[in-house]
Amino acid sequence: MMSERITPLTRSLLVEQLVRDVPDFPTPGILFKDITPVLANFEAMREVFGHFYTFGREMKPDVVVGIESRGFVLGMPLSQELGVGFVPVRKPGKLPYTTIREEYTLEYGTNALEMHIDAIEAGMRVLIIDDLLATGGTASAACRLVERLGGEVCGLSFMIELGFLHGRKRIEGRAVQSLVTYP
Amino acid sequence: MMSERITPLTRSLLVEQLVRDVPDFPTPGILFKDITPVLANFEAMREVFGHFYTFGREMKPDVVVGIESRGFVLGMPLSQELGVGFVPVRKPGKLPYTTIREEYTLEYGTNALEMHIDAIEAGMRVLIIDDLLATGGTASAACRLVERLGGEVCGLSFMIELGFLHGRKRIEGRAVQSLVTYP
Repeated sequence: MMSERITPLTRSLLVEQLVRDVPDFPTPGILFKDITPVLANFEAMREVFGHFYTFGREMKPDVVVGIESRGFVLGMPLSQELGVGFVPVRKPGKLPYTTIREEYTLEYGTNALEMHIDAIEAGMRVLIIDDLLATGGTASAACRLVERLGGEVCGLSFMIELGFLHGRKRIEGRAVQSLVTYP
Repeated sequence: MMSERITPLTRSLLVEQLVRDVPDFPTPGILFKDITPVLANFEAMREVFGHFYTFGREMKPDVVVGIESRGFVLGMPLSQELGVGFVPVRKPGKLPYTTIREEYTLEYGTNALEMHIDAIEAGMRVLIIDDLLATGGTASAACRLVERLGGEVCGLSFMIELGFLHGRKRIEGRAVQSLVTYP
């Protein structure tokens, strides 16, 4: 079941137990993975961050980038543990200063992501984090934003991966960690 | 005391130095306090969380509630430090499961906040966190959501307070921490 993507060392049993399936959200036919029961459980989140910290220490980033908005919940603890800063990637119009933008398609629609133009310095190693790897649209857009500013994406961390949407293909060749994969 | 609002012990000098003023965002005439330079600075965030942890330990919450979306960045590290869970309060339509809703007015418009109906258990002590106390509209709406579910708001933490908007009046009588106040 774990395919080669998840090793016992990184798999999170508590996450698997606590994630709640919500049918027809945000649109009919989508089975949404609700992580709020995981966030509400201190022990589960301690386990989750333990896995993120281990991977993060290996990747040696200079900065952690979190994708709006569940990536915000996960990114700041990781950046503090690793002793680096945190940079938000946001939906259009949310960041107040001058931004760059990348469009993407996602599981249910299209959208864009923005990053402040001074958020990353050239040559910085960047670890990107979000709750979910689905089609890989947001993840690849975040990679493009980082690389346009001269940063190097040294890894990507996710709590959940929807394997059947093949998001890995859009971030092929990169170091990717996911704690639970639904094949 | 800050009169009594800010003591030297809780005031964050690094935050004051790093916050960036962005004029006319999100609408003309608003001087937006951009905290992304603070988030990007590891030392500043370590200082910020030090203050949040001290107040949080005094308040002894059973759960931390973070308000979308900059409250997400601040809330999870606090909840992990205090050994409790994290609950998101979100804009309408974002939470997938059954929600309750409270309307509010804010500095530049009107909106509503939602919380999952099972997010708080009756009798829980709840610490609410957000980046900014402005008019107090979001903060008081978050308090009402918590109290509708039977929770007790034991305190509220903010990185920045815009004193001239008098948000304190809408959360009068509650324990409130803010690290920087613009009078």
